[in-house]
Order: sequence, then C-alpha cells, then structure tokens
Amino acid sequence: MANETTINEIAQQIQNILLERGQMMATAESLTGGLVASHIVDIPGSSAVLVGGIVAYQNEVKEHLLGVPHQILEEKGAVSAETVKAMAEGARQKFGCEWAIATSGIAGPGGAEPGKPVGTVWMAVANSLQNEAFCKIFAGNRNQVREKTVYSVLSRLLFLLNNQKSTCTSEH
Amino acid sequence: MANETTINEIAQQIQNILLERGQMMATAESLTGGLVASHIVDIPGSSAVLVGGIVAYQNEVKEHLLGVPHQILEEKGAVSAETVKAMAEGARQKFGCEWAIATSGIAGPGGAEPGKPVGTVWMAVANSLQNEAFCKIFAGNRNQVREKTVYSVLSRLLFLLNNQKSTCTSEH
Repeated sequence: MANETTINEIAQQIQNILLERGQMMATAESLTGGLVASHIVDIPGSSAVLVGGIVAYQNEVKEHLLGVPHQILEEKGAVSAETVKAMAEGARQKFGCEWAIATSGIAGPGGAEPGKPVGTVWMAVANSLQNEAFCKIFAGNRNQVREKTVYSVLSRLLFLLNNQKSTCTSEH
Repeated sequence: MANETTINEIAQQIQNILLERGQMMATAESLTGGLVASHIVDIPGSSAVLVGGIVAYQNEVKEHLLGVPHQILEEKGAVSAETVKAMAEGARQKFGCEWAIATSGIAGPGGAEPGKPVGTVWMAVANSLQNEAFCKIFAGNRNQVREKTVYSVLSRLLFLLNNQKSTCTSEH
C-alpha cells in the first residue's frame, strides 16, 4: 500500500470535514469488532465528531440493538447489502447523528458460505439523504481482511463527505 | 514490555477459558473506542465468546445506552470508579452475558482535570458475582495510553477468570 494515504490520514480528514460542518458520526461493526471506531478515536479531538458505536458481533445484537429486521438476517444473511444498510441506519437513529458506517463480513479462517468466500465483506455508509452498500472480497489473513475493511469503509466515507450533494440545490 | 505476555496471547487465553466454561463477554468502551473488543475479535473463534460491545464515547451514550445514572456522571464524572462500574454492569445487562469490561479515561493530549492528569484511566471488570473498578495513571502519548489500557483491563479479566471463586463453595 506504498504511497497510499494511511488510515490515520483518512481519519484526520474525516474529522476535519465533520468538524467544519458541525456533523457527527457513529459506527456499527461486525467483523471489524470496534476497529473502525478505534481508528476514529486515534485522532485527538475525536470526541467532537464520534458519538459512539456498537460492536454487533452476534445476529441478536444486530437485531435488538440496531434494529436489523429478523427477516433480512434470515433471508439475506448477516453478510449482505440489506443487513449492512439496516445496521448503518440503525446506528444513525440510535446515536442521533448525520453519518454512520457499518461492516459485516467473513474475516476467516472459518465461516465461508456458498457464494461468500472468506474475505467477503459488505460495508455501508449512510446519512440522512442516502444509504449506500458495497461489497469487496479481500485477500489476506483474518487481520488483513479486517484492516482492509477499515481502510475501505473510511475511504468511502471520506469520498462521500467530499462529494455529497447539498440537501438543497438552486435551479437555474 | 519485553518478556511480557502479548495482548494477543492474553486474548487467546481469555477465549480458551470462556469457551471451556460456556460463558460470554461484552465491552463498554470510552477512551479505548472499540480497541478492547477489536483485540478480542483478533482471535479466530471470537464469535463464540464475544456478544458485542458499545463504544460509549459521549456521556449521553453512557447514560442512555448503558444506563449510567445521570447523577453519577454529574457528581463523579465520566472518569470515575462509579461510572466504569455502571458501564460494565450496563453492558452485562444489555448483552445478557456473564462478563463485561469497561474503560473510561483521559487519553490526551487535552482533557486533563484537577486531580485527573492525562493518562488517568478507570477500568472495571464485572460478572454476576462482583464488579471491580481500578485506576491507573499511564505515561505516554494518546495511543500508548489507549494500548496500555487494553493490556491492563484484559490482564485483569484474565486474572479474575483464573482466580474467580465458585458461585457455590463447600463448607467444612
């Protein structure tokens, strides 16, 4: 990952933009298990931008604390677009903030399912205007998969913060 | 920290003991921001022992998601024995498991208060029989303070797992 922006640099840029806008964020993490929130907290001043997070490692937690519908977990599985979108929106509602990110995937070494090999990760970034899910299949061991997930979802949040359309645009 | 047990080795031992006993754990983290849960998730098989966690970075989250009484936060402060004990018990109740650990402290560089210098950290480990808080003042920068907190609280959990008296002891 030479020449790439580091996770810390991305987290710093996210904090700068959120501070400038007076917005805050929250996290809902399964396979990353708190690592996304922890990278946000790495940056001094994070208390002004991070409300909190939920490590939703069990399906029951996704359902009862984040409000992921039981039917989605049953029919689509925990590692799915529908689940991470519901996790992100659940975290936004629970913590009452503008932005939330969610992760759910198969870090390995076990846990592979038909059509979902080890390394399959669904992520979502939500705000009050949109809720976007995306999937990656990461190579590497358990911790590499988890670190790549953090990098990927924080990069996506930063991209959306930089490119988000205004709530209200002028017509000409 | 040469010759010391690594965090990963401690997390592995915690997992082994919890698995053997069929018990599970949860986390309630302030300054560590998900880092404790993340170190538990580092170990393959963690889904059998970690229910979930709450990153309670704001006082409102400590109060509303973990049930820390408003009066405790007002009178004792977020960095206090009373707060971390209430956080740990709140997490135990919320996630319905035998063990929970909690952290709250001043990672720096800002945030020092009279009598609470940067590096002051309160931690708690709770189960259904006891809820124990302890305080350390760690030297180092923000991330060193946070890493030392993870090491300290997981070491304490492991110690208590190894030394916990049975719920019921025979009298002779």
